[in-house]
Amino acid sequence: MVNEWGFSSPIGNDSERQTKEAVSVLGLGPMGQALAGAFLKNGHPVTVWNRTPGKSDELTRQGAVLAESVTDAAAASELIIICVLDYNAVRSILSPAVEELKGRTVINLTADTPERAREMAGWASANGIDYVDGAIMTPTPTIGEATAVILYSGSEDVYLRHRQTLASLGGKASYLGSDPGRAAAYDITLLNLYWTAMNGYMHSLALARAENIAASDLAPYAHGIVAIMPAIMTQLAEEADRGVYPGDRSNIISAAASMEHITHVAEHHGLDSSILGAGLTVANKAIQAGFGEEGFSRLVEFHKR
Amino acid sequence: MVNEWGFSSPIGNDSERQTKEAVSVLGLGPMGQALAGAFLKNGHPVTVWNRTPGKSDELTRQGAVLAESVTDAAAASELIIICVLDYNAVRSILSPAVEELKGRTVINLTADTPERAREMAGWASANGIDYVDGAIMTPTPTIGEATAVILYSGSEDVYLRHRQTLASLGGKASYLGSDPGRAAAYDITLLNLYWTAMNGYMHSLALARAENIAASDLAPYAHGIVAIMPAIMTQLAEEADRGVYPGDRSNIISAAASMEHITHVAEHHGLDSSILGAGLTVANKAIQAGFGEEGFSRLVEFHKR
Ligand SMILES: NC(=O)c1ccc[n+]([C@@H]2O[C@H](COP(=O)([O-])OP(=O)(O)OC[C@H]3O[C@@H](n4cnc5c(N)ncnc54)[C@H](OP(=O)(O)O)[C@@H]3O)[C@@H](O)[C@H]2O)c1
Ligand SMILES: NC(=O)c1ccc[n+]([C@@H]2O[C@H](COP(=O)([O-])OP(=O)(O)OC[C@H]3O[C@@H](n4cnc5c(N)ncnc54)[C@H](OP(=O)(O)O)[C@@H]3O)[C@@H](O)[C@H]2O)c1
Repeated sequence: MVNEWGFSSPIGNDSERQTKEAVSVLGLGPMGQALAGAFLKNGHPVTVWNRTPGKSDELTRQGAVLAESVTDAAAASELIIICVLDYNAVRSILSPAVEELKGRTVINLTADTPERAREMAGWASANGIDYVDGAIMTPTPTIGEATAVILYSGSEDVYLRHRQTLASLGGKASYLGSDPGRAAAYDITLLNLYWTAMNGYMHSLALARAENIAASDLAPYAHGIVAIMPAIMTQLAEEADRGVYPGDRSNIISAAASMEHITHVAEHHGLDSSILGAGLTVANKAIQAGFGEEGFSRLVEFHKR
Repeated sequence: MVNEWGFSSPIGNDSERQTKEAVSVLGLGPMGQALAGAFLKNGHPVTVWNRTPGKSDELTRQGAVLAESVTDAAAASELIIICVLDYNAVRSILSPAVEELKGRTVINLTADTPERAREMAGWASANGIDYVDGAIMTPTPTIGEATAVILYSGSEDVYLRHRQTLASLGGKASYLGSDPGRAAAYDITLLNLYWTAMNGYMHSLALARAENIAASDLAPYAHGIVAIMPAIMTQLAEEADRGVYPGDRSNIISAAASMEHITHVAEHHGLDSSILGAGLTVANKAIQAGFGEEGFSRLVEFHKR
């Protein structure tokens, strides 16, 4: 059974089930627990380890084996998944077990920068460890569900060897090519959008509060704003790739005028307006450079320092 | 026929059609043209006017009457819709026709600040003009379609008297109460979210370009990010209204760490990072004030100057 993402479905037949690959999961924060839980639910033998004890009770109840050390966890499975705070933590966890890891596979689902992902891949390679880097784009409740989005990059052979196991994590998985920094690059770029939008949303709730609008009254309309964004994003992306920025439907001058209205109202209410103000500065740079009548997509060129 | 928004459906019976209310539309920019077009399509007698000639050809072909002056346009219909650049333009258009407007209704769908909406309502009232303020939340192609979102506020009587006509503009219309500044307040607050998110998106495309990721390769994943936002927004709104900011699933410290990673990568690529940086400053203020372990929703309190 192969689904639209090219994965075998986790609901396989009995012989598939009996041969489910063993996995060790290092790191039992909220995300590590979700990952281990999804492997268990899909019938994989799972070994878990965490720096601080006391986070594995629920998982061992579900059948996981708690390893006493990273060395033990590495010895238990050919495939080791690690998901912790950052790559410094990854390095400090893996380094003492480098001998046991040799010849095994580490898939690192910790979020960090593309540069550090490439460094980590180099370290793994120098130590004879097969390595794939990954980035989880969706929150813990999605793991194992259809809505999970996980990006992978690095050695294609290693990825293909384990992708059936990774399918137990659910939803959409994408292999983004052999550069181990690629998943992290997508991650950073997408998180930039996420956090900027969320900062804007919190500023909007502050603005709403100043206008005596309850946040919960505003939220349904905020959903409406979010709903119009995908189509616009697709169009801006096409324009950015072509390097052609048509301003016939709306242009940078009109966007800047709208942003100026908003910062004016925010300041009138004693609110800081520097988040939107920073975007307005970018738009004004483009206007000063003579591109005011062009489309908003032109701003892709104006984020340099 | 009354639909879920409390409007009569524009597809009425013949006797309804024959008694469709006459409308004058002042301002034939992209939005004014869309509004006039939707009224025509729904069988209303439509009179149009624009400061600069040459923008009414398509509309007159469809049956609109071009008025020679605002005075003529005001005389032609009991209901006058105005949608131009800003309220200065509205005032300069309406003032010379103040005598003809007396006893008629002006519905002002121009975007501007809540303060100016209240001033405009005061001016109308002082001159014996019935007045409702409105804000259009969706782009021109939605007008007359199910996807249009238009907000109204001000005199409820006046709104109710014309809401069947306004239903011809399509989709979701919401009456937000008697404060004429309310529609503009929602508008400003929602546009703040929109522009901030769009600024973040353009910064993400610049970051993607620096990482050799084509914008069109990123866009589908950006849709995925946008798709997870509504549920999160609803939750943050509830927390903001309750003034309770639980940090058990994710907290401000971890959000700030993520934002710091991103600004680091952006700066490494020679990109300006002040849009996200301004959000990080807000988060850091909350952390310094001792709220780092609380949820992101706490930031609603930290946008004051
Ligand atoms: N949670 C989500 O919704 C989500 C979504 C997408 C991506 N992610 C990413 O997934 C990763 C894990 O996130 P998380 O939510 O599980 O929580 P987290 O707070 O980012 O990570 C907690 C884990 O990191 C370990 N850790 C931290 N510092 C360590 C160190 N110096 N040495 C050894 N272990 C260390 C913790 O061990 P102790 O228990 O011993 O402290 C715990 O296992 C992060 O990179 C995060 O960005 C999370
Ligand atoms: N377009 C959209 O997708 C959209 C979406 C939501 C809301 N809105 C809002 O709808 C309103 C109208 O937008 P728009 O897209 O039609 O384009 P716009 O550029 O905002 O407005 C153009 C109209 O304003 C008139 N105008 C400008 N300055 C004037 C002045 N001093 N005196 C008289 N008339 C003046 C123009 O007349 P001339 O032809 O003589 O210059 C034209 O009729 C704005 O408030 C906008 O924010 C638009």
